Parts: sequence; C-alpha cells; structure tokens
Amino acid sequence: VLSQSYIRELTHKCSIDHFGFLENGLFKQRYLLSDQHWRQNGPILFYTGNEGDITWFCNNTGFTWDVAEEMGAMLVFAEHRYYGESLPFGEESYSNAKYLNYLTSEQALADFAVLIKSLKASVTGAQNSPVIAVGGSYGGMLAAWLRMKYPSVVTGALAASAPIWQFTDMVPCGDFYKIVTQDFAKSGINCSKSIRRSWMAISNVSSTGEGLQWLSEEFGLCAPLKPQDVDDFRAWLQETWVNLAMVDYPYEANFLQHLPRWPVKVVCTHLQFDSGVTDRQLLHGVSQAVKVYYNYTGSAVCLNMSETATGSLGTRGWYYQACTEMVMPMCTDGIQDMFEPQSWSLQAFSDECYGLFGVRPREHWASMAYGGKKINSHSNIIFSNGDLDPWKSGGVTKSLSDSLVAIVIPDGAHHLDLRYSNEHDPQSVIQARALELQHIKQWIKQEQV
Amino acid sequence: VLSQSYIRELTHKCSIDHFGFLENGLFKQRYLLSDQHWRQNGPILFYTGNEGDITWFCNNTGFTWDVAEEMGAMLVFAEHRYYGESLPFGEESYSNAKYLNYLTSEQALADFAVLIKSLKASVTGAQNSPVIAVGGSYGGMLAAWLRMKYPSVVTGALAASAPIWQFTDMVPCGDFYKIVTQDFAKSGINCSKSIRRSWMAISNVSSTGEGLQWLSEEFGLCAPLKPQDVDDFRAWLQETWVNLAMVDYPYEANFLQHLPRWPVKVVCTHLQFDSGVTDRQLLHGVSQAVKVYYNYTGSAVCLNMSETATGSLGTRGWYYQACTEMVMPMCTDGIQDMFEPQSWSLQAFSDECYGLFGVRPREHWASMAYGGKKINSHSNIIFSNGDLDPWKSGGVTKSLSDSLVAIVIPDGAHHLDLRYSNEHDPQSVIQARALELQHIKQWIKQEQV
Repeated sequence: VLSQSYIRELTHKCSIDHFGFLENGLFKQRYLLSDQHWRQNGPILFYTGNEGDITWFCNNTGFTWDVAEEMGAMLVFAEHRYYGESLPFGEESYSNAKYLNYLTSEQALADFAVLIKSLKASVTGAQNSPVIAVGGSYGGMLAAWLRMKYPSVVTGALAASAPIWQFTDMVPCGDFYKIVTQDFAKSGINCSKSIRRSWMAISNVSSTGEGLQWLSEEFGLCAPLKPQDVDDFRAWLQETWVNLAMVDYPYEANFLQHLPRWPVKVVCTHLQFDSGVTDRQLLHGVSQAVKVYYNYTGSAVCLNMSETATGSLGTRGWYYQACTEMVMPMCTDGIQDMFEPQSWSLQAFSDECYGLFGVRPREHWASMAYGGKKINSHSNIIFSNGDLDPWKSGGVTKSLSDSLVAIVIPDGAHHLDLRYSNEHDPQSVIQARALELQHIKQWIKQEQV
Repeated sequence: VLSQSYIRELTHKCSIDHFGFLENGLFKQRYLLSDQHWRQNGPILFYTGNEGDITWFCNNTGFTWDVAEEMGAMLVFAEHRYYGESLPFGEESYSNAKYLNYLTSEQALADFAVLIKSLKASVTGAQNSPVIAVGGSYGGMLAAWLRMKYPSVVTGALAASAPIWQFTDMVPCGDFYKIVTQDFAKSGINCSKSIRRSWMAISNVSSTGEGLQWLSEEFGLCAPLKPQDVDDFRAWLQETWVNLAMVDYPYEANFLQHLPRWPVKVVCTHLQFDSGVTDRQLLHGVSQAVKVYYNYTGSAVCLNMSETATGSLGTRGWYYQACTEMVMPMCTDGIQDMFEPQSWSLQAFSDECYGLFGVRPREHWASMAYGGKKINSHSNIIFSNGDLDPWKSGGVTKSLSDSLVAIVIPDGAHHLDLRYSNEHDPQSVIQARALELQHIKQWIKQEQV
C-alpha cells in the first residue's frame, strides 16, 4: 500500500531480452510516478528499484519526497524485473532456469534506461529534463551503474549504502561481519561478547531433546526445533543480528521490521551478561533480544525462522542474482567478529547454486562489467555510507574525484539518508542530505547550461 | 596469411553468453599477439576486430606496426566472434537463429574486455600496462564503445572512420551516398553525371534479350544476365562505386581489391562522357570503369556479381548485425547523389530480416546502448575521419571536449590513417597520425602518473 498520495501506478512495456534478438517478447514493468511538484523541464528523480516490491521502496525513500517541491522534481520509482509485479513470465517467472535467464543487473539497467527515454519522449515538457538516478543498497549499486553505463540517460546518481565493491578480491571478506560486531559492541556492555558466547551455549543446550524443546519454547518458535534444524537456527540468529545492524535507525521505524528507536541499544539491554552467566540465562537474554526485532509490536503469535525481514523483499530472486553475478564473499573468524568462524568457499557456494538453479556464479564478472575499483573515469556519482551499516564494508568511502563524491554518515545505518527527515535525525545525516542536494543541484545546473 | 613476422596466433576461451548464465558454454576466440617491441609495463595496442578475418585486419593496420617500436608497445589483434575462425558453434554458428543469438556488439565488447583482463593477468610485466583500443570502421565503433563501456579496461581509443552516428534520427540518411557522389564528381569531368545517367541506360539496354546478352558480354560477367537479374546488377554496380570511394587511397593498395593509386580518378577516365553519348557507349565506359575495380591485375577470368570485395569480410554475419542492432538507414534521391532514388523503409528492411534470420531490428537500441549523440561525459577517444570516405557521414567530425577529439583528414578515404605509412601519403594523413600518437602518448602518461 502506498503511503503517498499524488502518485500514479503505471506500467511500461519492456523487452524481456535487451541483449539478444531471438527472445522478442515484452513484459510489463511497473513504475510509480508523481508529478505533483514537477515543473516543466524540471528534473526527474528516478529511483532504480532493487530486489523487492517497488511500493515498499517508494514508502521508504522519503528523501525524494522531502526535496521534490524545492527542486520542482518529478519522482519516478521503477520496479526491478522479477520483483513485485514486474514478472517477465508472470507467475511462471521463477519456475525454471530458462525463464530466470533474464534476471540480471544488466537487463535491469537497460529496462531503466529505456523507461527513462520513453518517459522523456512521451511526457510533455520532460524532453530536456535532467534525470538523477537515486537508489539504496542494491538499488544504489544500480543507480551508480546506470550513470556509468548509460551516462547519456542520467546526469548523475545518488548511490546510498551501495556496496559496489563487495565482490571477490576487492574488500576483505570479513569486514561486513566486523562492522555488525562493532555496532553491538558499542551499543551495550558485553553485548557482542554475549552473542559470541551464545553459539556454544546453543550447541550445549541443543544437544539434548529436552534442551531443544526448551529452546523452541524460550524463543517462541512456530515450529519446534529438531536436531537437524540447529544450523538453520544459528543462521537465522546471525541474519537477525545483521538485519538489526542494518536498521539501527535513531527513531522508531518500520523498514525490515517494526522497531524501536536505536534498536541495537534496546537489544543490547538484554545481553549485558558477564562471564558467570549460564547457558540458559544467556539464551533467555538472546531470546528477549531477538523478540525486540521480531515482536516489538507484540502482535507476533510465534517466531517464524523462515523469514527474517519484510515479505516485500524478493529473497529468492536475490539468491539467484547472488548465484550468478552478485557473488559477494563473506567470512567470519569469531575473533574480530562475534560469529562462529566460517571461511568463504566459492566451490561450496557454486555447488549450492547449481543445485538450486542449475547455474554457477561467475565471480569476476561484476568487476569486469562495472569496473571494479577502477571507476575514476566516471563522473557525477555520490556514494553515501553510514558507519553503522555493515554494507559500508563494500562501499566507496573516499572521494575519487570532484564529481565522484563519498559521504560518510557516522551515525547512519543502512541508507538512513534516503529516509524522510525526522526530528530525531542526527546532525550527520542532516548535513549529508544537504551536501547530496547541493551536488545534485550542481549537476543539474551544469546539464542545463 | 599474415604478412608480419614476429606475431603469434593464439586463442582464448571465452563465454558464449556474457549476459545470461543458462548458456554456460565457452568458445575459442582467436587473437594475434606481437611483443617484438614491447617493453615491460609498456602499452598494449589492442585492435578491436570487426566483421571479418582478423589476419586481414592485422595486415591492413600498419599504423600500429609503424609505432610499436617507438612506443615499446605490445600489439594484440582480437578477432570478433562469429568471424574468421572465432565461431562460437563451429561450422554450425550460422545455421539457425538460436546459434546466431550471441552475435551482438555487446557480446563482442565483453569478449575484448575479458581477453584484455586475462592478458594483463597472465603476461608477466603487463599487469600495469595501459591499453589503447584501436579499430577502423565497425572496429572503430567497437574501439570507441569499448572505452565508453569498459573504461576500467582501456585507457583510450583510436576510432578510425567509425560511423557511430550512422543510426536512426542521428544523421540524414542521404549523406552517405552524397559523399560517394562528391568523390566521383571531383575525380573527373562528367564522372558522377555519367554514373547517374547509366541507370536509365541499363534500363533501356536490358529491355531486350539481345541487350541483356550484350551487357553480360560487355561486363564479362561469369553468369549471363536474365531479366530478373537486372536489379541485382544495378545493386552490384552501386556497391562497386561505394567501395571505390571507400578505398580511394593515394597509392596502389590491396584492401577490398587490388587497386591502382587514386582508383576513383582512374575509374573516372572511363566516364568522361558528355550528353551526346549513346547508351551502349556509356555502358562500355562503365564496364571499363568497373573492371578497374574487379580486374586491375588482369587475372580475373570473369566478373562475379555475388562478391564485391575480399572474401575476408563476413558479409552474412554483418547482415545479421545490421538486421538486429546495427540498423543504418540509407537513402538516395538521384539529385544530390548519382544513384536511383530510393527512400529508407524500416518495414521493408525488417521484413527482409525476418525472412532471412527470423529476427527483427530494434532501430533505437544502438542509440540507447551507446549514448547516441550525447557522449560528452566520456573521455580519451580520437575519432578520425577522411573527407573522401562515405562513412564520414556517420562519424564524429567535431571535437566534443579536450579528450574527445575529432580529426578530419581532407585527402583520406576509409581509415587511411590506420594503414602503413607510404611515400605517397598526403600531408594531411601524416599530420593526423602524428596528432593521434600525441594524444595516445598523453593518455598513457596520465595513466601512469
């Protein structure tokens, strides 16, 4: 459900395959358009949709709504193919490898470029409108890449929390989980230590049938744990901690889940144990902590291990993308991070991908296609990153030129800057947004000379 | 046959489909490499092969051989997929629409980018070598596009006689044939007028059986003309005039055919008729003129209408490319040019393509993919064009910025600047080459800072 009024839901007929001519079919790409504040020849802020329902991204990208009036800007939110309602083969889109073959970032970028050209050609007064790509997370990667690959179409890009370097050989695979750990370490006494200790406690407690039952009840799981579920249980907890770090916003918000202000701090109040704690005491704390994430509103009947975030995200599609182009190596060592040691194995990952989708990843392709760390010949891109955001690990955090600008937001979690302004916003995000707006206005001005 | 020594013929295993993961096959891409003059860390001049056998392009790109020693450069000539010996599905590559589906410029660019990365990773001392893309004609388009799409891989590009704007809505469709006509008009008295008049003469003479026989004998055709062949005969002549304009070089050369110095001037000596000429006198002149092109060496037994140039060009592959991405509208009016009036019909072209290959062209895609006329955000590309070259019609002939440099060569035909230096070279091409070298050296220097 769209929270904004003055917005229209539209579709655009788009080629299923931009890079081959045998598959000549079209599909309906969904996009949202608001011209409430737009002045003719005024700019278009174009959100490059990521792996989920575009409505949800639209509702969580308040920045564009906050600046639309001042900029006289049209807002467009384009849905990424294979997500939300933009399904190239309808309900069958995920049914086989042949249909999934057109789920790539290159195809998505071409969709966006073609849609922009079409809008500029068809909307009266938009022919000379400068277009700024805006996106967060994977959508931020797409915004940056759209400027890199189609600079004739977009004048510039705001790439918020975009881990364009989270690929093989670009950044250490452990950085991501280190940042997660740092967030917890600084949000409460013994917080990360307690989580580090919890993995062994889970092993101990889950070794008996009674312990498993206790765990299931303690966590209020929808389905009781069986011995073979314990790995999934750990993985679910790990993902929960990651998600909490990502959405550690300074005010009550509902992005991945409905959460209190500074949720990691709240979580950590349940994890202040010293070394004398028993396994069950510790895991009781963990369960209280986890319930902050899954049941802040108190409406959850039980906790469902199969879902760690909003259903608006297309996890299956994203997994396919990770299994093909978006290969992001991650690892933990249990020392610099609070997780169980796990090295990165491309082979294991590749085999899993082959089993799931019949495809194998090409780990160096993204670097090839999008320039890896050598992107300094491009221009007009802002890379913003929050110090609290684990994805900062793969982000551009130092400016590469006058027009490839890095902005770091010390108190920011995952693309906080793209959200609506809020009375609890720290100064750092207020300043970041002002700087972003300044650059964007400058690009537009240069374009209109 | 390679005319250079010190060159190795190699192959590189390359993905058949860079843009999808279902087709996971590899094929052998052929490339030629000479490191005779290369110094470690020295530059790599990388020829982006076009629609034909790479050996032939290698032999006709003397410029790179002339500068290799001075630059300490490695030379690499990479063959374009589906041409020469680089056939993704072997002898079956052209057998059906499914196999042809991977014949696109985007796939070819990705092949080049991957090959460059692979060479830099595997050749000792090449890791930091700056790479300059070099190409002529379609190969020049690819050189420019390689820099645009993969600037992390190539530092700059020399795009010689590259008609990157010969697409829908970018340049008038009649410009190409106008330039052809101008070449003939200035190469001899009444030359273009005689050719303009020849079409009616052909109609008149070919209207009788005896006339057809006379024509066949006069032109020494391998197969006698039937009434239904007359349109093909005209098309063959038209293509012959075009080719002559393209290779109007200032010295004896063997590119499309073995030809004398300034061949259009030689051709025009046979076409100096005034208005009193009879049809058969005129066509006798045309046949003498055409034989300059097809039989300069005197070794042709008869003239074969099915081939207008060297067999090293892959005309079928190029036609497929024209039928998909490389849609280049051409037209004639018989007034500003010396040809029979023919308007451009996308529909007719599209239907022909569908009949031949089962695909239809996407006339706006090339503009979308490669930026159309809005390419000013790119850098480090030289666009060189000769005033005698019909393809200048779609070329960039005015500099767009300090590093998007246009060089026009008044006495140059099709990528004359890429050829070996010659004692008959006009000053204009000597200056052009010097300027090209100067820019290339500057890019390399900037890269190495």
